[in-house]
Parts: sequence; C-alpha cells; structure tokens
Amino acid sequence: MSTPSEMAETNRLEAFSDGVFAIAITLLVLELHAPELEEGEHLWAGLVNEWPQFAAYLVSFAILGIMWVNHHSMFRQIQRADRGLMFLNLLLLLWVTLLPFPTSLFAEHLKDTSVDGHVAAAVYSTTLTLAAIAFSLIWWYVLRHNLVEHTMSKAQIRMSLVRYSVGTVIYAAAIGVSFVSPRLTLLIVFLLALYYGFEQVRTRGETA
Amino acid sequence: MSTPSEMAETNRLEAFSDGVFAIAITLLVLELHAPELEEGEHLWAGLVNEWPQFAAYLVSFAILGIMWVNHHSMFRQIQRADRGLMFLNLLLLLWVTLLPFPTSLFAEHLKDTSVDGHVAAAVYSTTLTLAAIAFSLIWWYVLRHNLVEHTMSKAQIRMSLVRYSVGTVIYAAAIGVSFVSPRLTLLIVFLLALYYGFEQVRTRGETA
Amino acid sequence: MSTPSEMAETNRLEAFSDGVFAIAITLLVLELHAPELEEGEHLWAGLVNEWPQFAAYLVSFAILGIMWVNHHSMFRQIQRADRGLMFLNLLLLLWVTLLPFPTSLFAEHLKDTSVDGHVAAAVYSTTLTLAAIAFSLIWWYVLRHNLVEHTMSKAQIRMSLVRYSVGTVIYAAAIGVSFVSPRLTLLIVFLLALYYGFEQVRTRGETA
Amino acid sequence: MSTPSEMAETNRLEAFSDGVFAIAITLLVLELHAPELEEGEHLWAGLVNEWPQFAAYLVSFAILGIMWVNHHSMFRQIQRADRGLMFLNLLLLLWVTLLPFPTSLFAEHLKDTSVDGHVAAAVYSTTLTLAAIAFSLIWWYVLRHNLVEHTMSKAQIRMSLVRYSVGTVIYAAAIGVSFVSPRLTLLIVFLLALYYGFEQVRTRGETA
Repeated sequence: MSTPSEMAETNRLEAFSDGVFAIAITLLVLELHAPELEEGEHLWAGLVNEWPQFAAYLVSFAILGIMWVNHHSMFRQIQRADRGLMFLNLLLLLWVTLLPFPTSLFAEHLKDTSVDGHVAAAVYSTTLTLAAIAFSLIWWYVLRHNLVEHTMSKAQIRMSLVRYSVGTVIYAAAIGVSFVSPRLTLLIVFLLALYYGFEQVRTRGETA
Repeated sequence: MSTPSEMAETNRLEAFSDGVFAIAITLLVLELHAPELEEGEHLWAGLVNEWPQFAAYLVSFAILGIMWVNHHSMFRQIQRADRGLMFLNLLLLLWVTLLPFPTSLFAEHLKDTSVDGHVAAAVYSTTLTLAAIAFSLIWWYVLRHNLVEHTMSKAQIRMSLVRYSVGTVIYAAAIGVSFVSPRLTLLIVFLLALYYGFEQVRTRGETA
Repeated sequence: MSTPSEMAETNRLEAFSDGVFAIAITLLVLELHAPELEEGEHLWAGLVNEWPQFAAYLVSFAILGIMWVNHHSMFRQIQRADRGLMFLNLLLLLWVTLLPFPTSLFAEHLKDTSVDGHVAAAVYSTTLTLAAIAFSLIWWYVLRHNLVEHTMSKAQIRMSLVRYSVGTVIYAAAIGVSFVSPRLTLLIVFLLALYYGFEQVRTRGETA
Repeated sequence: MSTPSEMAETNRLEAFSDGVFAIAITLLVLELHAPELEEGEHLWAGLVNEWPQFAAYLVSFAILGIMWVNHHSMFRQIQRADRGLMFLNLLLLLWVTLLPFPTSLFAEHLKDTSVDGHVAAAVYSTTLTLAAIAFSLIWWYVLRHNLVEHTMSKAQIRMSLVRYSVGTVIYAAAIGVSFVSPRLTLLIVFLLALYYGFEQVRTRGETA
C-alpha cells in the first residue's frame, strides 16, 4: 500500500512530465515560419512548397502525443517514485525537450538529396531511439525495484520487456534507413508511433 | 460509478490539455514584434500601423480562451477517458497548438488585397473549422461510448449534436468568406467565439 | 457549501491561470539577447550597456510574480467559479500574456529621449493599468455574486474595493509620468509591485 | 497539523514552481539553431562544430532537472507556505527563468579564448550561485519559521544548513575558475549538479 506522501511524489512527477510534454509539443509550432515568397510567387505555392515543415510538425506532434499517452499509461501502473526513477524520467524528458531541434533540422533538409539530408534524418531518428531506450530503462527499472502497483507473472514481465525492446530496435533500424531515404524514415517513425498508439490498447486489456 | 483510477486518468488528460491551451495562448505573444520604423516614422504611428497583429492576437486569444472554457465544461460532464478519447483530444490539441502559425500568417496578410490575403484568411479559418470538427467528434464519441456522467434524453442528445454541427458549418462558411473579405472573416470568427461563450451558459442550465 | 464538482471547477481555473502566469513569466527571458558587440567592444561592456533589458526583465518578473501571489490569495477566498468569473479571469490573462511585448518595447526605448521613449513607457504602463482594472473587476464581480467563501462586513467590502481602486489609480498615474520620464515610470511600477506584495499581508490578517 | 486550506496553498506553490521549471527546461532548446554551413561544409561537420551549444544545453538541462528534484524533496518536507516563503521561492524562480540567457551566452563564447569567454563563464556561474543562495535562504527560512513538517534535532538542522552552504561556496568558486578556464567551469558545475543528485539520496534516508 502506498502512503499519501508517496502518492503525492508520483503525482508531482507526472505533473512535471505532463508540463514538459505539453510545452515541447506546443513549441514545435515555433519552427513553422511564413514562407519567404520570391518575386511573383503566390502564398499558396509558398505554403505547398513548405510541406516538409508541416510533415515533420505532424510526425513530431504524433510522436510526442503518443509518447505522452504511453507515459501516462505506464505511470498509472507505478505506485511509488524513488530518486532513480526520477533521474531515468529526466533522461527521457531530455530527448523529449530536445525533439523540436532535430525536427527543425529534418524539415529543413527533407528535400536535400545530398549527404546532409541523410545526416539530418539520422539525427532525428537517433533522438527517437534514445527516447525509446529511456522508456525501456524506466520500465525495466520499475519492474526490478517492485514499483509496479499490480503483480505480473514472469511471462507477462518477459513479454512487456520484449515489446519495448522491439520498438527500440525498429527505431534503431530507422537510423539505418536514414542513409537510404529520409522520407522513408519519416514514414516509418510515423507508422511506428501509430502502432504504439494502438498496440498499447491490447496490453492494457491483458494486464488489467 | 467511476473508480479513483479512472478519475485520475480524466484529471491527467485535463491537466495536459490545460497545459497545452495555456502554452498556446501565451505563445501568441511571440508573434508580436516591435515595429521596424522607417526614417522619421514615430513609434506611435508604427504601432497603429501594426493593428492587424493586435487584431489577430486578440481574436486568437479569445478563441483559445473560450475553447478552453468549453473544453473544461465538456470534460466536467465526462466520467471516464479511454484511449479513443485521448486520441480525439490529441487531434483537437493538434489544431490548438498550430493556431499561432495561421494567426501570424493572417496578421501579416490582413492588409494584403491580393489573392495572398484571401489564402491567409482561408488557412486561418480552415484551422478553426478543423478544431470545431475535432470538438464535435469528441462529443459524438463520448455520447456513443457512454462516457458522459449524467443521463441525457434522446432529444437532448440530438440537440447537443446539432449545436456542435451548426458551429462547424459557420466556421466552414468563414472559409468561403475568406475569398471575399479577410477582415470580414476575422470579424465572423470573433463573433462566433463570443457566441460560443454565451450560448454554452444556457446549455449548462438545461442539462444540469 | 460548495459541491466537489464546483470545487473542481475553481481548481481547474486556478491551474489554467497558474500555467499562463508561469509561461508568461518564463517567456520574458526570450526578450533577452546576447549583445551585438561592436568592433573592439568587450562582452562585459556590451552587457552593462544592455541594462535596460535587465531592468525591464526584473520589473516585469516582479510584477507577474506578485500578481500571481495575489491572484492566488484572491482565489483562495473564492468558493465557486461561474462563467462570468471565467471570462473576467480571461480578460486578466489577456494582459498577463501580452506583457512580454510591452516589456520588450519599453526595454528597447528606455534610453530613447525622443517621444518614442515616452510612448513605449506609456504602452507599458497602460498594459499594467488594464491588468489592474481586470483585477478590480474580478474582485467586484465575486463580491457582487457572493462567490466569496467567508462573510465580510460592509466596511471590509468597501475597504477592499477602495484598495484595488487606489492601485489602479496609481498605475494610471504612471501613464502620465511616462511622458515626463520613462525611467521614473519603471521605478514607480516596480515600487507599486513591491507595495502590493507587502500590503496584501496585512489584508489577509484582517480578513482571516 | 496543517489545515486543508494551508495544504492547498503549498500545492499551488509547488504547481506554479513545477510549471516554471518545466517551461525553463524546455525553452533551453530554443537556443539551439541549425548550423549555418559555410560553402562546401557538411551538416555533420557543422553539428560537431556546434558542440558548445550541446554541452551547455546538457549541463543546464541537468542543473534545472536536479534543481527540480531537490525543490520537490524540500517542499515535501514543508507543511505550510506563508507569503515570505512565496517571495523567496519567486527569488529562486527568477534565476531559474533567467538561466536560458546565460546558457546561450556561455555556449556562444565557450571556444572564445579572449576575456569575453571568461566573462560569459562568470555570468553563467554567478547565476547558478545566486540560485544556490536562494535555495539556502528558503531552507533557512522554513527552519526559522517552523514550516517544516517533521521535527529535526539541532545537529540535523546545523548539518542541513552546512550542506547548503558548501554547495553555494563551490558554485562561488566556479565564478573564480571562470577566469582560468571556461570549460573547466562547465565541468565543475556539471559534476556539482550530479553530486547534488546523489547526495540528497542519503539525506532523505537520514531524516525520514
């Protein structure tokens, strides 16, 4: 049973994380700028031409939004927060707050067919991989230190750890794809975010 | 009856949404810049000349503020949040966080009598229409999945859905008006925001 | 007695307001920029030369911080929030979120001895006056609609209203001073903020 | 025993502080910019060249994150908030919100071997020293006004005050180091942040 004082600690950790997620997801808009129109160019054409900005905005919004939903689901199962969990959570938030930077870098270079386009895509997918690793570390940590509120069978624990590892491996694979096609990278990480959104539904059904 | 765990979920969803609304409404100010004065121009004249910035700021502030009030009223009637509701809420927040961008675009082109002025107004009102659709979807979803806390008669349900649809249709009409007069568009969406502010008062009286 | 549902409403109103205050106070830093050094100028001299930026930052931080403390004190005495209170609160938040703009304008023109310096100071103190009026309106509204949690004698009510009016009058006087000396304006609004910080202490003692 | 009303006050103070910490830590990313590539320079080289930006980002993130954790731990022990505590907390938040500015200044001058590099490092470490002093003042104030929830022996009180003073002295020493080596300054404040992260763990064990 968790004492009120311990519950409060988890609540404030969640509130702080919610704040960081909410701010990072809202700051993404600052990377969108009105197109600088060339002589005779129309605004509509300028906006269409800026599609990489909007595509990168949408993908990063979806990723941060779904990460928030999953962070939420994960922490609903966590009963107590100790200092180790706080630091691992800060590690996750480091990549969350950083995301607007690689998003802007990726958007700027999405049409770039030189090696710079590949590098920008790789920086973006590396940031996501590091976030996925941080997520896995948090889950591994809470299982190891018995901070989870309900009891899980050994099979369930193993399966939940495998599930996180698979996501991390796919994000890591997206780093490789960056050197083939930046646009394909963007598509993969978008689909992976959607998958995480739906996949988690089933999980909750199992463990509830 | 909702369990404490389910209540907590709604609370955190509201807290996250509050954060996003609060940040988006505050970030609007970053689109205001000190006027660049021409040789011999006075600051006062420069500021007056910037009226489209202030008008667009005020309208977007009112829209986001009233959307927050209505989001608040809606979620007070919602008892439980499931994953579907979370994703529809994220869809709404997508347009909320995006709003500073079309606001800035609209302000920049409000005096523009070329087709660009019409396009900027249309982008702005399209964003608002998409937000209105997201609001309608949330309400339709919570009714369909019985997530509402109180019982409503069939007539009340039908009326509440009609009310949302009417708002969406007016926003959509504002897209059309954009191609006639951007300034009229700004006026319409401002009046619609005010209407939503007052109209909702009656609704609460009815359903309470 | 306020029902849990009504309490929740006040809580969410406070949480939203806290968010807006916290964001506005933190966004002030975005108006500080590294000095652009002239040939041979040292960083230290450049920073000292930027004192108006730091002075305006400090004053706006103090004003927003103390406004938050007083908002907090005021809402602790408010038992229920209705829609009218929500809109008056939004009016207050309009001036709160706007503040980084006049702060930046004021800082930029604090050394400006032309009429522009007076205009910038007047814009700044007008924003503060409008915020003070919004504060008075909120207090007048909650008294009139019996939203206050404790009973106050007629004398106490009258005195509390006088107190708010006096503050508003002094802020309005600062608009006049703007046309004499911008620096004096900055000093007056800073001292007034400090006064509000300490004055309120006594008030709470009286009404508790 | 603290009354519900007093508890609420502490909660809202913590919520406001959490908001400010969350925003300040997330705004740091706005100081990161895509490198401006010279003719023929590759993006990868440009990013590597920008290492001072990333190093300063990481150190400020770690400092703000750990300050938040410690703020959290400190306030869990505080039972009531009075106006004095609110103002001291605002003083701490002043340096917290300011931090993105010296971070950007430091990053820009980290490779600068002239006196400007030393000045930028000194401005950065002075900001941290002022934050450490504010932290000490808060703790001294809550002890003096009996706002702490549990009883501490005289020896424990003395030790807790010494601990804060030592940290402040080391930060102050970092100001001196700034005039020897800016990079060493960055390393020292990073290590000090990590130390504060781990040191506090033991403390909680003692006083619990």
